[in-house]
Amino acid sequence: MYDVDRYLKSLDDGRVVYYKGMSVRNVADHPQLGTAVKHASLIYKWQHDEKYRDMLVYQDPEYGEISSFYKIPRKTEDLLDRFNLIYKTTRMGRGTFNIIQAIGSDAIFALLITAKEIDSRLGTTYFNRIEKFYRYVAENDLALAVAQTDMKGDRSLRPSEQSDPDMYVHIVKRSNDGIVVRGAKAHTTQGPVANEIIVIPTRAMTKDDADYAVAFAVPANAKGLKMISKPEKAVESANDDPWFIMGRENVETESITIFDDVFVPWDRVFLAGEWQYAGLLAVMFPTFHRFTAIAYRTGMADLLVGLGKLLAEFNGVDDKSHIRRDVVEIIKYKELLRSTGYLAAYESKADPATGIQIPDKVITNVGKLVANENYMDVIKHLVDVAGGLAATLPSSKDFENPDEMKYLSKYMMGKKGTDAVTRSRIISLTKEIISSFGALFSTAMIHAEGSIEASILELYRSYIYDGSKDLALYASGLKEKLDR
Amino acid sequence: MYDVDRYLKSLDDGRVVYYKGMSVRNVADHPQLGTAVKHASLIYKWQHDEKYRDMLVYQDPEYGEISSFYKIPRKTEDLLDRFNLIYKTTRMGRGTFNIIQAIGSDAIFALLITAKEIDSRLGTTYFNRIEKFYRYVAENDLALAVAQTDMKGDRSLRPSEQSDPDMYVHIVKRSNDGIVVRGAKAHTTQGPVANEIIVIPTRAMTKDDADYAVAFAVPANAKGLKMISKPEKAVESANDDPWFIMGRENVETESITIFDDVFVPWDRVFLAGEWQYAGLLAVMFPTFHRFTAIAYRTGMADLLVGLGKLLAEFNGVDDKSHIRRDVVEIIKYKELLRSTGYLAAYESKADPATGIQIPDKVITNVGKLVANENYMDVIKHLVDVAGGLAATLPSSKDFENPDEMKYLSKYMMGKKGTDAVTRSRIISLTKEIISSFGALFSTAMIHAEGSIEASILELYRSYIYDGSKDLALYASGLKEKLDR
Amino acid sequence: MYDVDRYLKSLDDGRVVYYKGMSVRNVADHPQLGTAVKHASLIYKWQHDEKYRDMLVYQDPEYGEISSFYKIPRKTEDLLDRFNLIYKTTRMGRGTFNIIQAIGSDAIFALLITAKEIDSRLGTTYFNRIEKFYRYVAENDLALAVAQTDMKGDRSLRPSEQSDPDMYVHIVKRSNDGIVVRGAKAHTTQGPVANEIIVIPTRAMTKDDADYAVAFAVPANAKGLKMISKPEKAVESANDDPWFIMGRENVETESITIFDDVFVPWDRVFLAGEWQYAGLLAVMFPTFHRFTAIAYRTGMADLLVGLGKLLAEFNGVDDKSHIRRDVVEIIKYKELLRSTGYLAAYESKADPATGIQIPDKVITNVGKLVANENYMDVIKHLVDVAGGLAATLPSSKDFENPDEMKYLSKYMMGKKGTDAVTRSRIISLTKEIISSFGALFSTAMIHAEGSIEASILELYRSYIYDGSKDLALYASGLKEKLDR
Amino acid sequence: MYDVDRYLKSLDDGRVVYYKGMSVRNVADHPQLGTAVKHASLIYKWQHDEKYRDMLVYQDPEYGEISSFYKIPRKTEDLLDRFNLIYKTTRMGRGTFNIIQAIGSDAIFALLITAKEIDSRLGTTYFNRIEKFYRYVAENDLALAVAQTDMKGDRSLRPSEQSDPDMYVHIVKRSNDGIVVRGAKAHTTQGPVANEIIVIPTRAMTKDDADYAVAFAVPANAKGLKMISKPEKAVESANDDPWFIMGRENVETESITIFDDVFVPWDRVFLAGEWQYAGLLAVMFPTFHRFTAIAYRTGMADLLVGLGKLLAEFNGVDDKSHIRRDVVEIIKYKELLRSTGYLAAYESKADPATGIQIPDKVITNVGKLVANENYMDVIKHLVDVAGGLAATLPSSKDFENPDEMKYLSKYMMGKKGTDAVTRSRIISLTKEIISSFGALFSTAMIHAEGSIEASILELYRSYIYDGSKDLALYASGLKEKLDR
Repeated sequence: MYDVDRYLKSLDDGRVVYYKGMSVRNVADHPQLGTAVKHASLIYKWQHDEKYRDMLVYQDPEYGEISSFYKIPRKTEDLLDRFNLIYKTTRMGRGTFNIIQAIGSDAIFALLITAKEIDSRLGTTYFNRIEKFYRYVAENDLALAVAQTDMKGDRSLRPSEQSDPDMYVHIVKRSNDGIVVRGAKAHTTQGPVANEIIVIPTRAMTKDDADYAVAFAVPANAKGLKMISKPEKAVESANDDPWFIMGRENVETESITIFDDVFVPWDRVFLAGEWQYAGLLAVMFPTFHRFTAIAYRTGMADLLVGLGKLLAEFNGVDDKSHIRRDVVEIIKYKELLRSTGYLAAYESKADPATGIQIPDKVITNVGKLVANENYMDVIKHLVDVAGGLAATLPSSKDFENPDEMKYLSKYMMGKKGTDAVTRSRIISLTKEIISSFGALFSTAMIHAEGSIEASILELYRSYIYDGSKDLALYASGLKEKLDR
Repeated sequence: MYDVDRYLKSLDDGRVVYYKGMSVRNVADHPQLGTAVKHASLIYKWQHDEKYRDMLVYQDPEYGEISSFYKIPRKTEDLLDRFNLIYKTTRMGRGTFNIIQAIGSDAIFALLITAKEIDSRLGTTYFNRIEKFYRYVAENDLALAVAQTDMKGDRSLRPSEQSDPDMYVHIVKRSNDGIVVRGAKAHTTQGPVANEIIVIPTRAMTKDDADYAVAFAVPANAKGLKMISKPEKAVESANDDPWFIMGRENVETESITIFDDVFVPWDRVFLAGEWQYAGLLAVMFPTFHRFTAIAYRTGMADLLVGLGKLLAEFNGVDDKSHIRRDVVEIIKYKELLRSTGYLAAYESKADPATGIQIPDKVITNVGKLVANENYMDVIKHLVDVAGGLAATLPSSKDFENPDEMKYLSKYMMGKKGTDAVTRSRIISLTKEIISSFGALFSTAMIHAEGSIEASILELYRSYIYDGSKDLALYASGLKEKLDR
Repeated sequence: MYDVDRYLKSLDDGRVVYYKGMSVRNVADHPQLGTAVKHASLIYKWQHDEKYRDMLVYQDPEYGEISSFYKIPRKTEDLLDRFNLIYKTTRMGRGTFNIIQAIGSDAIFALLITAKEIDSRLGTTYFNRIEKFYRYVAENDLALAVAQTDMKGDRSLRPSEQSDPDMYVHIVKRSNDGIVVRGAKAHTTQGPVANEIIVIPTRAMTKDDADYAVAFAVPANAKGLKMISKPEKAVESANDDPWFIMGRENVETESITIFDDVFVPWDRVFLAGEWQYAGLLAVMFPTFHRFTAIAYRTGMADLLVGLGKLLAEFNGVDDKSHIRRDVVEIIKYKELLRSTGYLAAYESKADPATGIQIPDKVITNVGKLVANENYMDVIKHLVDVAGGLAATLPSSKDFENPDEMKYLSKYMMGKKGTDAVTRSRIISLTKEIISSFGALFSTAMIHAEGSIEASILELYRSYIYDGSKDLALYASGLKEKLDR
Repeated sequence: MYDVDRYLKSLDDGRVVYYKGMSVRNVADHPQLGTAVKHASLIYKWQHDEKYRDMLVYQDPEYGEISSFYKIPRKTEDLLDRFNLIYKTTRMGRGTFNIIQAIGSDAIFALLITAKEIDSRLGTTYFNRIEKFYRYVAENDLALAVAQTDMKGDRSLRPSEQSDPDMYVHIVKRSNDGIVVRGAKAHTTQGPVANEIIVIPTRAMTKDDADYAVAFAVPANAKGLKMISKPEKAVESANDDPWFIMGRENVETESITIFDDVFVPWDRVFLAGEWQYAGLLAVMFPTFHRFTAIAYRTGMADLLVGLGKLLAEFNGVDDKSHIRRDVVEIIKYKELLRSTGYLAAYESKADPATGIQIPDKVITNVGKLVANENYMDVIKHLVDVAGGLAATLPSSKDFENPDEMKYLSKYMMGKKGTDAVTRSRIISLTKEIISSFGALFSTAMIHAEGSIEASILELYRSYIYDGSKDLALYASGLKEKLDR
């Protein structure tokens, strides 16, 4: 298995990454991207920490000691353990998800299931390829990113209808050795700090879109692969602010991931033109990944619960009816996420062909929808408790100047017995969540792992209405008895 | 065990019940209250139906064959079974809960736990009394009602502060044989058609309120006990409308239950002045009963899901984005209730003293709150799908007049291939839900088993914030490491 | 002008009306429809009441003394007066709108504007016809209904695409004398008690739908016209309940209005095939009618504000934070409606061709949307204040039985100093609003005058984005200066 | 009147301002606070710009040429003009309010009314003092800040109950020449760049709090006055980003404003111990200032409407039902604010004693509440339209590197015919609104000009329920006729 050092070294591989218009020589040393590396490396650190080792490391009968993230779920308990692994590591990351092995394993589980299905129908050999890739990843304890969302261009058009055919990643050449792919993917979380990039289609495809039905994996330093990182405001902001630990320690990066005619050898190709199965993959991956999302969002929500309660206490408004309501709305958010996450595990089923345990799709999407739709409202409640200082709090530097500190220690005190600096730091974190982290959290909570509309569509389509309709017909007197 | 006949006969016991200003001689024969009896009797009918027997009847090692409602939960599976028993019988009751053994068992479980606690602290013998009562109820398969909510008078005053001391039920006399109680309780569901009425306090009490800290059980025909039933619009409306099955078959009644100096012998008294424990009982009963509520509300929501989907299909709007959203909001409501109900069972814990399995209080209250706060919104979405005909639909009688039917069969058709009468009956049920059943459903969904504010208060108080605060302090940089 | 007697007599004209499967000989004498007549006749009563005469009667320079409802608005003040006329008569109708001259005048205003436009483009003579009709209506102070919403059949198909061509009202024959129309319209409010029925298209039409582009007026007793009234639960319920005044006095009826080959002479035809203008009419009428809707909904909301506050006071919860919030949500609803209604008047513009003052379309739709989307939430807040008794309140008959009244006068008391009967009657009205009136109010508030989606579509299309986009481009730095 | 130069020079007056722990010599030259100065100075620039002069400058019969902000409203039209002045200057400030004369005039109007009232009751001479101050301000065209919100300490305690008596600003000494005040105020917008600071109480006071009932004005360089500015993230962020114009041009600052025994001569003291009138002032100022707030928030909302629509168009999702809904929610927000703002002007009334026109308090608070409660939801809708790029958009610097631009110009294109850079800049502004501006906007929109709970309380208390209750009693049958 990796340790932190081996992971750091692995990143110095000539990959092409840009940050704010500059080419980045080594992401691990970079002043901003270095934070994304540091956050990812926590997984490797914890693997070697006695306190967390049991949770982070799994003794696989076949592969030996591997990361718990790479343990293939085969029963309800495995999914519950996976939920808690993600929930707890999110808490250990101060509320920031650690995606570096979670998303890759989500994709691998989905690819294993899909590959088995395609092979059984079409006589292909995808399962062996993805299994081999899985073995390589698990045994080497690699860091993975998944690139799914295409740039999309005009969203009202299908891939093959776009004026620029590259708006979705597609195969531009096939040869005996492999395929050549072109296009770009948006929002690749931790792409610039991963070892391997897994690519899967973003949607179901039609026959005309066959070249867009492509899934594969490439190393982050593959020729022709270029990643443009987003600017890391939270990190930049933290460098200036000793109070803002999260910004220095717990930020992930995201990139636009460009495939400028990247060659992929056949044993790394997991779908290549079988357009009928793009949809299956585009549903199976989100099922695993939205389950993951509910887990990390529960962890993130736990931070908001704690912040809300502390703010209420420090402000001396702990007993106000409207403040109770604010805090309870945050609790409700967290506990509804947890309820749906757990139930998705309890009602999971094993895929008959591979034995991989799949979280319940309906409950997973319900939880996902709750997470998306209510995050901004939760923040509204948090800000309501925090008060105006969430915007107007002085800088931590002001607390270092004795001339100012004379006043700040006096006037920043809240409820009797509280301490001005403690209160200010709690308010400060609230402020960062809605400013430095604002774009990331708001947008991610609304769009990551699929938009609100996507979850509505998925739920509407996949819900089994038979029992409900049976009841409605029975209650309407249109059926004599209940059949289901 | 009872069968339907024995149950019906048991009700002809001289009890004092009023309906619309008239004294009711026998509730079973009464044109409106008879429906409440018929609905309750379904439990006894199903107990003897081969199809449902396994679900409805439990072979208790000690008490022999008893109703599954009276099975004491001793592990997670028991609570899951209980959830499904309530969910399924609600569906079998066309979406209407069947409370007649559910609420009584909720109260008995709570009393057993509380009694054991009081006995262990104060050396009283309440546990034996309630256990004896339980044996009597279970062995005889009785129908029970629970009277908890006092009339309250001025809600800003405590029981002992009211200008009229009887606004909360209280002990007015104690003797060697027992106690005499006075006061009135509101909203006693199925009181007029129950065999026994269990009475418990509605809130925590102070020392000054000691006489109000009283719990007991009396037969429905106890001397001095008088019940004023609410008018049953849904039933009256159904008599006139062959389409409206629910109104004829599946309605429960509610009463104001008056204790005009009712004598209760000591072996039926389960709390009598130990004011410190009124609060425990007032929390323990809702924990069981809100769990029950989540189960029946899931069943009721299932009806709304089915109705919504059928309406969408019959109206030919199945593929409209805003209609999908409407239906998904109803699905979300149902599945969130189910998620919290199930998780409350999965995270239940056995009471150490009695071994009774208690649903998780936090999750139970989260589910309860979701049920309360969102019901009206769910109805908004249902009405949005139904369209204006939910108000302006002709009467079923119009469909019997051939002169009108000529037009109605033509013009009430929706999507091609649908049938005018089928569509109309589905709309008709929607209409009844928001009119004949309107006051009952709206109010019950918002207030039954405790108000929104009550759940907020309970959640705010009982949530364990330690882990969340620990995380917030850690993320704020105020703690070096996460302790929890 | 009419008085009550002349209006009542005018209804005994052989019109074909069905109620619950029975043919109705004279609507004025009918036990249920009679209430709709009584409510409508209030307009005529108030016209002759010194107290209200100034508000209800207008001295027109051309037509002499006419109903204020028929006064053509020609300036902002006229629309403000119209708003208040509707608001106040709604209050005088105990919160129930009095549509009988309001909707007809809305349609006439729209028809005058549209006719002028068509005439100017196509050389037709519609304006004279509708003006002549208007004179007839105004001078005779007639009662009008408007039938707009077609039965629609499969809502995903246009009129000419339906499997049954009659799903939308259309011209089946043209002759020298006039046209023959066939089809049916849903939800015709007060159709069975009106003198004339105005018919207008429900949507924009394409060339293929030309025969569906038809507008006209016919007397309620026209040959071939048949009306099927909805069952009047509120009225039936009131007959049994002395407390429920609204149900006996203030209910309107709605019908399915069937045109079974009804002949319309040319001078009553206001659109006949000019499909390009169906859309104009289908937008212009809602603009006037939604303005009307905002006014009556403000009146209805005023009732809910009063109820909410009284309930809070009688229950002794007037000072609770969550109750304040409940009441304020109702106030907010009312005052937002009033704000948009007034602003739609203040920002109205005169149609250049006719001089008729048109309420601002955007603000009108914003107000309409607020009214639709939030009604159920307002009811939730009302029920939260009312408490469980909104469902379980005894019947008024129970208050007449001395045996029961002994207890009810004692236990139904709320806050000290309040009276049990007064409190009960206030709760009783709340109950009727969510039960007898439930289907009507919920559905009407969500669907009447156009669905939520219809208002969203209209707003999205008709909003003038130029200034807003200019600002966004300027703020983005994409424009040097603000142009608008 | 001032021009930009005179204003800039006026700020170099030795005032004590801290920024991030450093003392600021001259705010106008300061890298971050300079932006707040530049934004404020726009008022002076526009006063001298032919295009805006008519709007910005008013010819007062008594004071000659003064700023339109300082024009005392004496009729409805004046308030409508004032609304539009604030709305338009907010748009001219790219959506950022320009508070520098608006808030000061709000305070002066409130002080004039309150002073007249106190004088008439107590024989004091406050009116002359505040009028003289007003003349000085208006004639010199000064820049003003208002400090109202005290630091508050433990919010559950009154000013005189705090463990530290200085938690609310109060009088510590009175002499023949004036008073000495001590304490601190939070959130003083533009305090560090104003000429004068007006101080008013934050709440009603009791007799025990008499020393806290104090209002006055001091120059920004008054001895003992110290201001700690909040860190300006938006400005810092903009320095690094050529695309982010708003951050460089249109940001205001806020300070904690400390009164360390500041002397105020009597002619600058407007309230000094008359505790009975603190409440009047604490209500009158918000009435004016919330009216101002509705105006600027309408301007800010206009930016969001434009952004939303442009994003929808550039992303090619302009015709999606859920996107229409998103945009319409933003439109609704803006138009509801405008409706309440305008109606508050239309229903304004002149104060009998001073003739100053006061916006309607109820409608003002309704508008305020809508603005507070719905802002986060509006942002949710904006982000839903924007898509994930609102978080993951590359930096403007990436668009300057030709190696990256090759890809970005290709892949950042949206709908056919749109341009990658234009689209990216629009997304970029969206991102800044939820990140650099995130804390400011979220918090201000929820808390500025009073919290949600404050508006609820004010509305609940001040609403005139008489008409509504009259209607509810009439509709309940408890009154024979409507009295109001």
